[in-house]
Amino acid sequence: MFIKLSKQSSLANLAVNGVTCRGKVLTLDSMNPNVRRVEYAVRGPIVQRAVQIEKELREGVKKPFTEVIKANIGDAHAMGQKPITFFRQVLALCSYPDLLEDNKFPEDAKKRARRILDACGGHSIGAYSASQGIECIRQDVARYIEKRDGGIPSNPDNIYLSTGASDAIVTMLKLLVCGEGRDRTGVMISIPQYPLYSAALADLGAVQINYYLDEDKCWGLDVTELRRALNAAKQHCKPRVLCIINPGNPTGQVQSRECIEDVIRFAKEENLFLMADEVYQDNVYAKGCKFHSFKKVLFEMGPEYSSSLEMASFHSTSKCYMGECGFRGGYMEVLNMDPEVKAQLTKLVSVRLCPPVSGQAMLDLVVNPPLPDEPSYERTAVLAALAEKSHLTEEMFNTVPGITCNPVQGAMYTFPRITLPQKAIAKAQEEGQAPDMLYCMKLLEEEGICLVPGSGFGQKEGTFHFRMTILPPTEKLKVVLQKIRDFHLRFTQEFS
Amino acid sequence: MFIKLSKQSSLANLAVNGVTCRGKVLTLDSMNPNVRRVEYAVRGPIVQRAVQIEKELREGVKKPFTEVIKANIGDAHAMGQKPITFFRQVLALCSYPDLLEDNKFPEDAKKRARRILDACGGHSIGAYSASQGIECIRQDVARYIEKRDGGIPSNPDNIYLSTGASDAIVTMLKLLVCGEGRDRTGVMISIPQYPLYSAALADLGAVQINYYLDEDKCWGLDVTELRRALNAAKQHCKPRVLCIINPGNPTGQVQSRECIEDVIRFAKEENLFLMADEVYQDNVYAKGCKFHSFKKVLFEMGPEYSSSLEMASFHSTSKCYMGECGFRGGYMEVLNMDPEVKAQLTKLVSVRLCPPVSGQAMLDLVVNPPLPDEPSYERTAVLAALAEKSHLTEEMFNTVPGITCNPVQGAMYTFPRITLPQKAIAKAQEEGQAPDMLYCMKLLEEEGICLVPGSGFGQKEGTFHFRMTILPPTEKLKVVLQKIRDFHLRFTQEFS
Ligand SMILES: Cc1ncc(COP(=O)(O)O)c(C=O)c1O
Ligand SMILES: Cc1ncc(COP(=O)(O)O)c(C=O)c1O
Repeated sequence: MFIKLSKQSSLANLAVNGVTCRGKVLTLDSMNPNVRRVEYAVRGPIVQRAVQIEKELREGVKKPFTEVIKANIGDAHAMGQKPITFFRQVLALCSYPDLLEDNKFPEDAKKRARRILDACGGHSIGAYSASQGIECIRQDVARYIEKRDGGIPSNPDNIYLSTGASDAIVTMLKLLVCGEGRDRTGVMISIPQYPLYSAALADLGAVQINYYLDEDKCWGLDVTELRRALNAAKQHCKPRVLCIINPGNPTGQVQSRECIEDVIRFAKEENLFLMADEVYQDNVYAKGCKFHSFKKVLFEMGPEYSSSLEMASFHSTSKCYMGECGFRGGYMEVLNMDPEVKAQLTKLVSVRLCPPVSGQAMLDLVVNPPLPDEPSYERTAVLAALAEKSHLTEEMFNTVPGITCNPVQGAMYTFPRITLPQKAIAKAQEEGQAPDMLYCMKLLEEEGICLVPGSGFGQKEGTFHFRMTILPPTEKLKVVLQKIRDFHLRFTQEFS
Repeated sequence: MFIKLSKQSSLANLAVNGVTCRGKVLTLDSMNPNVRRVEYAVRGPIVQRAVQIEKELREGVKKPFTEVIKANIGDAHAMGQKPITFFRQVLALCSYPDLLEDNKFPEDAKKRARRILDACGGHSIGAYSASQGIECIRQDVARYIEKRDGGIPSNPDNIYLSTGASDAIVTMLKLLVCGEGRDRTGVMISIPQYPLYSAALADLGAVQINYYLDEDKCWGLDVTELRRALNAAKQHCKPRVLCIINPGNPTGQVQSRECIEDVIRFAKEENLFLMADEVYQDNVYAKGCKFHSFKKVLFEMGPEYSSSLEMASFHSTSKCYMGECGFRGGYMEVLNMDPEVKAQLTKLVSVRLCPPVSGQAMLDLVVNPPLPDEPSYERTAVLAALAEKSHLTEEMFNTVPGITCNPVQGAMYTFPRITLPQKAIAKAQEEGQAPDMLYCMKLLEEEGICLVPGSGFGQKEGTFHFRMTILPPTEKLKVVLQKIRDFHLRFTQEFS
């Protein structure tokens, strides 16, 4: 018997003894090549191995540890953070409105639930909403933005609710991508980056333009570097979009006002659409750092900018003090968008009908929580605790020879640089693996700690990092830091 | 002052008195052309006008009616249907677990909520879940499928939870589309179709291959027509996918077992990936009709088929007896998928992190509701009432001269054919409008009833239809039918 590839068909179709035996319709070779190119490290092979190890532990397999600590993702509740009572009361009331008769629920929670239900079809969160999101929730979002930005007006018509910020970011990128060959849309993203961006760009077949954050300057952003990246890219694509994450993921920097002004000037000069990912807007810890929204700075730069720069900014229920990731709530605000394009955007989002209504309800509470003088006001210590943990992490890592760590000014992650012995680098290369992947895999196997290698986010050639969330409870975080320290010393010794 | 188009730039960049004043980055001309081509009639201009009219009514504008009846979409709760108590109790318990201490909730609801919470990170539905969906819910889905299909095994690893069926359908199509020019993937869809399909194909730049359902045979599907469409398409693309909606939207037909067998044989012969949209699997009303899942029929056709035909089937929390659209729960089951492709699919869904966890919880309840001998069992009259309304609708429409209506065998819609006077057709053409759009717009303005014109779903050239959901409560449905009858007669007269 001989097997040969039949000529007129793909690799998947084999001719066996002359009889064509058809292979699969859908194979690696015949699937969407853009999807194949997508990478998403935050939930990549290392996380899959972590899940496997957890299974093995449950099945009684002996390991040098008793639990896997998943510090790979910014998922506050998974790390034990408790939800805000009021938020969940309102969600329960919306889910099961019979509870509106129950005396146990505070009046303000009931009032809020009634307002949301009144805005739902048939007074049920089980009805589809308008595709752009429930109108009164978009109004609340607009008021939130106005308050945040010191009164700069926000128009609810410019607000699009979404299935988490991820959804809105992907939708906005999709709208922006066009052209072929040298005319293909180029999108500037920071390196290191949150891999949603590179994944979405691969999926859309857009050109990814890397600009590098400066590790030596606290992961700062410099317009000279933006310009370098842009000019290089102009040789092979049409740069049209600039994406900024502030506060930064994975790098934790918080941009200064001056830096934001520079970025806005650059975007205007170069005729770029600005995408401002501000999902960590409440997560600022470092002394002297403050969150400035791109919109506020834009408006304060005067009408020359505020009336022309096209931008979208993104927010989410997943981060900040509430960490309600599972609800998949989020929004974007678009500014200076061509009305015809806005109509196209509205059409595009209508294809998937609507974002989850419970996520919309959660967003409503997040943008409009009870005030200090209202009965359900709840002082949450989450942000203060995160600030403490950010300092703890930086200090601890910087005591370890071979680890250097910038301050975690904001967001929820540390992205320390690790020095790896030459032998480890050589071994990884032999195995066709990124050296920091080898490091993280070994850490997972030996200590049960799941991190994401820096290679998953992009980093300067020849440098190595990992990303760790600072979300574990303080006592657990201390243990994690100690374990990583021990591991790092052991690893360095093993490969010297 | 003169304005002229500058040479080197797009229409959007105008040169005013020699000074280039840059236009927008993002315009109709410079946006993603695939997105521009997307159409989505179910939420199109007619629905936007309906929302406007509602606003006008609230503002006191006088109209010949007092409310807009939105019969354009299959949204049960918006039409006044009440949710299943047990489902909402469990959702409330999951949202606010303090209620687990409350005696008012039945034990089985508490048990179910505890099981779901135990499967969530940190016991909170506010944590991200696995991207493929929570494992124990995927197990429940697999058991549901096994039970539905008389014991044919279902593997939880083949189940992907999703943000409504829409999300899973788009994801699956995305995976399947590749090639350029004559090698571009062709996807066969029924005409009339649910416009999610044409929209997703336009977005992906895939080739839409239309096969026509036979209105004279109760919107039946004939393999001869499939073959005709396929052969014609082979001239200009690579047909790789066959999409079937059963029970049908907008056409309401329920496929016979024989027809399904024919389709499966055809798909196998022609090496097509089969996508079976079965979101209306519980919605079967006509005597002699029964829902047969494609999977069950596939397996009953023997291993020659069941071990090779690649397919995905889709289900949703939005339809059937529960109509929980707002939760955006859904799943797909993939069969015979290449394991490497499955890994790619898992990677792809991980980019958006996870489907909404409350939607996943809702899905868990839908696939595993309380049984008749359990305390929270609730007999719902929804399906019986829908059956009654399906008959009522068919009968009523068929009494109107110029309207002919197939039986609504299943799903939630009627798609009657309307005869339009030549003058009306001419007027619409003058205005560059589809004649049935003119008809539906006029109906909306005069009677406050919002339907979707047949042109939004596709129809045989020269025929006209509208789609109406049969979901309104019986008394209201009668009013709607009467109003449409009156309008139709008036319209016919007006244009004769
Ligand atoms: C910078 C950034 N943007 C967007 C997201 C997406 O968040 P979600 O889709 O949960 O709202 C994340 C999540 O980690 C993020 O870190
Ligand atoms: C045939 C069909 N498929 C899929 C869907 C999508 O439903 P959902 O995304 O709400 O699950 C619908 C909704 O009307 C439909 O009619």
